[in-house]
Amino acid sequence: MPLTRTPLLAETVRKLVARGGYVNAYKIFNRLHPSDIAAILGDLSEHLRRDAFKTLYRRNLTLASEALSELGPERGAVILSEMSSQEISAILQELNPDDAADFVADLPAELQEEILGAMRAKEASEVEDLLQYPEQTAGRIMSPKVFSLEEESTVEEAISQLQDAGDLEMVFYIYVVDEHGNLVGVLSLRQLLLKRPETLLKDIMETDVIRVTTDTDQEEVSQLVASYNILAIPVVDAQNKLVGVITVDDVIDVIKEEATEDMYRLAGLDVEERVFTPPSTSIRKRVPWLVVNLATAFITALVVAQFEATIAQYAVLAVFMPIVPLLGGNAGNQTLTVMVRGIALGEISWANSRKALVKEVIIGATNGFVVGVLVGVVAYLWKGDPIIGVVLSLAMLGTLLVAAVTGTLVPLFLRWLKIDPALASSIFVTTATDVVGFLFFLGLGALALARF
Amino acid sequence: MPLTRTPLLAETVRKLVARGGYVNAYKIFNRLHPSDIAAILGDLSEHLRRDAFKTLYRRNLTLASEALSELGPERGAVILSEMSSQEISAILQELNPDDAADFVADLPAELQEEILGAMRAKEASEVEDLLQYPEQTAGRIMSPKVFSLEEESTVEEAISQLQDAGDLEMVFYIYVVDEHGNLVGVLSLRQLLLKRPETLLKDIMETDVIRVTTDTDQEEVSQLVASYNILAIPVVDAQNKLVGVITVDDVIDVIKEEATEDMYRLAGLDVEERVFTPPSTSIRKRVPWLVVNLATAFITALVVAQFEATIAQYAVLAVFMPIVPLLGGNAGNQTLTVMVRGIALGEISWANSRKALVKEVIIGATNGFVVGVLVGVVAYLWKGDPIIGVVLSLAMLGTLLVAAVTGTLVPLFLRWLKIDPALASSIFVTTATDVVGFLFFLGLGALALARF
Repeated sequence: MPLTRTPLLAETVRKLVARGGYVNAYKIFNRLHPSDIAAILGDLSEHLRRDAFKTLYRRNLTLASEALSELGPERGAVILSEMSSQEISAILQELNPDDAADFVADLPAELQEEILGAMRAKEASEVEDLLQYPEQTAGRIMSPKVFSLEEESTVEEAISQLQDAGDLEMVFYIYVVDEHGNLVGVLSLRQLLLKRPETLLKDIMETDVIRVTTDTDQEEVSQLVASYNILAIPVVDAQNKLVGVITVDDVIDVIKEEATEDMYRLAGLDVEERVFTPPSTSIRKRVPWLVVNLATAFITALVVAQFEATIAQYAVLAVFMPIVPLLGGNAGNQTLTVMVRGIALGEISWANSRKALVKEVIIGATNGFVVGVLVGVVAYLWKGDPIIGVVLSLAMLGTLLVAAVTGTLVPLFLRWLKIDPALASSIFVTTATDVVGFLFFLGLGALALARF
Repeated sequence: MPLTRTPLLAETVRKLVARGGYVNAYKIFNRLHPSDIAAILGDLSEHLRRDAFKTLYRRNLTLASEALSELGPERGAVILSEMSSQEISAILQELNPDDAADFVADLPAELQEEILGAMRAKEASEVEDLLQYPEQTAGRIMSPKVFSLEEESTVEEAISQLQDAGDLEMVFYIYVVDEHGNLVGVLSLRQLLLKRPETLLKDIMETDVIRVTTDTDQEEVSQLVASYNILAIPVVDAQNKLVGVITVDDVIDVIKEEATEDMYRLAGLDVEERVFTPPSTSIRKRVPWLVVNLATAFITALVVAQFEATIAQYAVLAVFMPIVPLLGGNAGNQTLTVMVRGIALGEISWANSRKALVKEVIIGATNGFVVGVLVGVVAYLWKGDPIIGVVLSLAMLGTLLVAAVTGTLVPLFLRWLKIDPALASSIFVTTATDVVGFLFFLGLGALALARF
């Protein structure tokens, strides 16, 4: 949420809650949109957040549950952790089933049972149904509350049913089903307004409905909604029975989540981590990546160790040693980022990936030449030794070529293995550029200095 | 666009166009959604893309312009570059004004004039109006075609006007204005269905309308739409006059664009670059970043140069030298990514940024200790020299602390300067961790080896 919107209010609420002015804090909350309340709650310390939420919860259960839903499972966990399972159930049964499922999924298994048991039977079973589907699939993120009508209904019946359908806040399309509940058509709300009351839905519906199945990956769902510019996409089971709908607001969350995921994976971070994840959790999640990096750093050290004797003789090699791997790492990272993002946005297909490789090799060769000449000249001017300059130039050119090739091929290869290209690409690419960078520079350096 | 959807069709079209089978290629296009046509065009070589587009353009101008719009200005540029300004105008005047403005903005200034001159007057002036607003503002990305009614209108009049408003494809809300055209209220389409025909709009409208002004940054627009779960946001000028609307499909584009921007900036890439940007452009855009990196690499080399004599004496230092800066760079990058993404998602405010710093320092200290002990033990086992082990451990701890502090403070400081935190953070952080990493390790190493 933008920082410009609620900082003053947040400060006021913070002071009120800290002083025990719960009633006045509630009065402020009561005037706000749930998403603003969530922004304020998210800004408070964990202790104050719990107190402020309790105030809201006691006075306005609906608003409290909406705010919790906006806060999301990660930042909401600390609030729920202090409540009884009765209280948690009372809140969760107010949420949309897909949002409630997000919260329940994050709880320990025994607490899940207890909470679902304490919820109203209808809501509990809706949540349980959603939890059957794997995370990040259409089935898991869909809302089972989908507005549908039979194909034999008339426009007049459709409008009257729409008027009766109270709690469906986001109806954009009317999905039309046959007698078995199979999805056969779609109509927009506006089309209803344009037709005569007695018209049958089956005569005006669009039959070519873009749809997904419950096991479709959420990233594909978001790409479909985004590229077809639609507001909602129906979800069907393997028998084409309409079982849910995913609306554009959920798609926006998926798009943000997937972008975060890619950025995090490129940096070796766990997808679940957020700015205010407790430090103990962050430590546990970041250490493995650092240990993997340590292992690759030792590989680098092993390469350098082969040249220990040469370095003892020509210590100047050690001075210039960091330059080539540093630049190689950066160039590799540029290529890698373009590729990973291009794959995520669906711009790279198998057909055009060769073109991408050719392009990156041309860039690597040119930039290797430009940066190579530059580094050689500067080194020569500094140390007055042409040999170091030439060695640096050549090593730079070679390393930037390797950076281009690995930066392109590693993510493509991972995708071919059906692994997220963002997940492990950077470790392979930087290891390659580090090893090759030291090897080229020290190897050429050892040869040249021994000979001239 | 997902790779799973159109690869076979793309292959067929490629073969058809390559063989000159334009009529059959057109028959395929004619059955597809514009976004699928765009996906296929984007996949073709530039030469075939132009030919395929020309086929489409001659037979179905509307479909051609829709496909071009989906392809976007970057990938569409190569198509327009081969067309006459008459032809370009004929296409652009079919697009929504905001999409047309995107294309026009990317053209050379003299061609802009010529094309706007050849367009129908109404469309040309709509595009010109939009181009007055700076890039990445609400004014630039809004659609000036906004559906609004006067507050004295009745529900019945509203419905009949909706039925007449032909080409407004994405009407979700009805904005209500006063006699001066000022925005005073909003209604959803569904609310219209629930009210009696003679009801006045001003009696049923919601008056607390979430709105932005023409100069609002597009990132803030997208955060508002996403956090309030709305489908469109009205844009007003400084006098609160309703001038346009931004719909959720444009917001999705903004969210993707901003995520790409952050990822690219962290990797030192230009925001405009795409997978298939011509190599010459990519080279021009990537070299400056590499040159900046080269400068920082020389700073690193300068630090190492201070220890040249020590390294000549103890070449083992050179072997372990790369390890600490490598790990420091990775740890700094983890912190930086969490911060940059947290700022972009609006999770970090000034109030809670101290908390973020404390958290990262705790993580840096703990991970520094864990990885420090590990690297020390491995180095000791390898070389049998406890001094190197202890020096590595201490240098690692110190460097990971510096990584935590700079990784947190640099993006916050840049934001305070109103610079995009993603833009230059990584260069400062990696330079800091490199310099400090070499300095701590070689400095401590020189001291220890000289003494023991």
